[in-house]
Order: sequence, then C-alpha cells, then structure tokens
Amino acid sequence: MSDLIELRDRIRVFTEERDWGQFHDPKSLILALVGEVGELAELFQWLPADEAVERTRNERLHGRVGDELADVLIYLVRLADVLGIDLGETALRKLRGSTARFPAEEVRGQAPDKS
Amino acid sequence: MSDLIELRDRIRVFTEERDWGQFHDPKSLILALVGEVGELAELFQWLPADEAVERTRNERLHGRVGDELADVLIYLVRLADVLGIDLGETALRKLRGSTARFPAEEVRGQAPDKS
Amino acid sequence: MSDLIELRDRIRVFTEERDWGQFHDPKSLILALVGEVGELAELFQWLPADEAVERTRNERLHGRVGDELADVLIYLVRLADVLGIDLGETALRKLRGSTARFPAEEVRGQAPDKS
Amino acid sequence: MSDLIELRDRIRVFTEERDWGQFHDPKSLILALVGEVGELAELFQWLPADEAVERTRNERLHGRVGDELADVLIYLVRLADVLGIDLGETALRKLRGSTARFPAEEVRGQAPDKS
Repeated sequence: MSDLIELRDRIRVFTEERDWGQFHDPKSLILALVGEVGELAELFQWLPADEAVERTRNERLHGRVGDELADVLIYLVRLADVLGIDLGETALRKLRGSTARFPAEEVRGQAPDKS
Repeated sequence: MSDLIELRDRIRVFTEERDWGQFHDPKSLILALVGEVGELAELFQWLPADEAVERTRNERLHGRVGDELADVLIYLVRLADVLGIDLGETALRKLRGSTARFPAEEVRGQAPDKS
Repeated sequence: MSDLIELRDRIRVFTEERDWGQFHDPKSLILALVGEVGELAELFQWLPADEAVERTRNERLHGRVGDELADVLIYLVRLADVLGIDLGETALRKLRGSTARFPAEEVRGQAPDKS
Repeated sequence: MSDLIELRDRIRVFTEERDWGQFHDPKSLILALVGEVGELAELFQWLPADEAVERTRNERLHGRVGDELADVLIYLVRLADVLGIDLGETALRKLRGSTARFPAEEVRGQAPDKS
C-alpha cells in the first residue's frame, strides 16, 4: 500500500523537522489518537442516527468531520511507524481473515454478535 | 492516495457481500472504532512508557497490536467512505496545514500545548 | 459525596494490597479507562439507536453492560484519587455551571451545538 | 451508594428541565462520554508519564483535569440511569469480584496481563 507509506514518510519528516519524535512513545500517541476520536465523536453525538450522513453534508460540518478523520489517520499511521508495523499490509490481511471468518452466505444481513 | 482507495473498495465489497451497510451509520461506526481503539489501549496500558516499543517486539504481542491498528484503520476508512470523505487527500491537506501552523524553527523540541 | 469517597477508599485498599499503585500513573489509568469505554461501546455498536434500551433489558446483556459501566467508574475514581481531585464535588460544581450556562427556557428541546 | 444516587437525581432534573432526555439514547451518551474522555486524554498526551501527577498540580491545569473527569462522571451516571443500572452497587460488586479473582498474595506487584 504505497500511499499509506507516502503518508507515513511525510509524517516522519514533519516529526523529525520539529524534533517531536521524543514525545511519540506508543502510549502518548494512543492518547493523542483518543483525543482525536473524541473530537470526532462530539460532532456526531446529538445527531439522530438516521440523519447523520445527511446532516454532515453541510459544508462547514463536512470540513470539520474530514479534519477529525484525518487527525485520527495521521496518529494511527505515526503509531504504526513507531511500532514498525506495515499498516496497509496488515489491514489487507485482516480483511482477508474476516472474509474467511464471516462467510457471506451465513451472515448476510445479520450484525456480528458482540455480546 | 490510490491505495487507501483500494482498501476502501475492498471494504465496500466485503460489506456489500454481507449486506452489512445497513448497520454502518456514522454513529455505529464511530462506536466500532472506539471499541477497537479500546482494545489497542488495553495492550499498552500497563507497559512502562519507555519500554513500550521494546516490549511489543515480542512476536505474539506485535501481531496483536498490528491486528488492532488494522481494525482501527478499517473502521476509519469505512466511516470516511460512508461520509463521502477522501481520507488520504484530507490527511495530506491537514499535514500541510500543520506544517504551516507549527514552523519547525519555532516549535522544535517543544510539545504543542494542549491545555 | 461520601459514597464516592467510600468507593475511592475501597479501590485504594484493593490497589495497595496488590502493590499495583506503581502502575497507576495517570496516562496508564486513562488508557485503562479507554479500554473499558471501548468494551462498553462494542456492546452497543450494532444495536439500532432507538431499540438500545429495550435490547439491553435482556438479563445477560444487562449484566455485561453493568460490568463495563462499573469498570469505567472504578478507573475514573482511581484516576481522580491519584490526581487528588474530589470527583463528586467537582461533578456537582460542573453541574451547577451547566445549569447557569444553559438556561432551561432558552435551550429547551434543542441539543447543544457541538460543531 | 446514596451520593451517586443524589448526583443521578440532579442530572435527571437538569435533563428534564431542558427536555434533553430525547437526545439521551445510550449510543449518543456513549459518544458524549467518548468526547469527554478524549478531552481528558488530550490534557495528558504529551506529558512525561512519570511527571504527569506533578505537572497537573499547576492550578489551571488541575482545574481543567477536574472538569474533564467530572464530565466523564456525569455522562456515565446519566447512561447508567437511562439503562436502569445502579452504578454504585455494580461497582462494589465488581470490586468484590476482582478481589476474589486476583488474590493479593499471588499477583502482588505484577500488572495483570492484558495481552
């Protein structure tokens, strides 16, 4: 997944230019990720579930949602980099695993039971 | 960022084959993302901050951390898809914004003040 | 708020008996809290928003939800203890602040705008 | 745990006076909780793990941390109320369960393995 690699490299340069690598231990990066997920959650918390897509078509809110999604991605890519994990490859492998684990004909239309 | 697009398309096919799109309203997907972030956090919570990278070099733990990072990415990519947001482009734009907002010579070695 | 204080004290004893205080720096406790919030989120992620209360009346699921809520509370109370914060008093103060900030006659029936 | 009950009742009155109960389905409340946990995480993300308690003794930061902890508690108590769960009782029961599950003499000084 070369483009996630390109994003990783750009974030790496951004970090090195600022000497911010010293702050990027995994626990700190996960907290930063949690912060961004929290900002994302706040934008949706009081929207009716079945109107959330429509309501976020509003230009200003669409921009803010995009910003938060991007922030989550940036910290996620940085965290994978610090841990030496190939995020794209791992996601593809995970998806292949789920494809095998949840045969379409058996689970069609049923939410996986998380309880 | 074609590869995030490729990942998005594979997740889309996976979802459609199972008719799971009906469960993928934004609020539900954010909760799923939060679930995966929680599993990631659990793996690190009791590790000493300065040994976290080293400790997760252990093969089994490295695999589990990769799985959780991948799960977070998958839900993030799916959420962006549902919302019609180009995740890679937005991340690049965000990174360019941060590059301008935090001039390297001014912020070098100082963590951004979040308080 | 004496009962939160009683809970705090019981958690403190539990922690001291196990010599687990050494792991309870704030960042680690927040990650533990995030882990429990993630488990809570997972229980609800695929439930239809307007059936979530009803569906969790099921005895087994009700028990699991209670367990996760309790885990979140326990880490929250422990975190406040480590930081020297009186959680109950602060919550009452916060609630009084919100009462003043959101006059009932002005905001009735409108969700606070979080965007 | 009467004081958590008192807090629950005050939050209930606050909510009813504003007719905000209509927004308080469990999924929305969990997202609101996630938002507050995110704000809490942000305050700590770049602090050195072993200086986090000391650094948050600073009066302004201590106040902000208290506010975020209080917000998490308020949404947690409200969520338990909506779900008909006695939060204090459940936490006591959970703590008793952990006391039995982790005998002090066996686990002393060892972090529970979360992997």
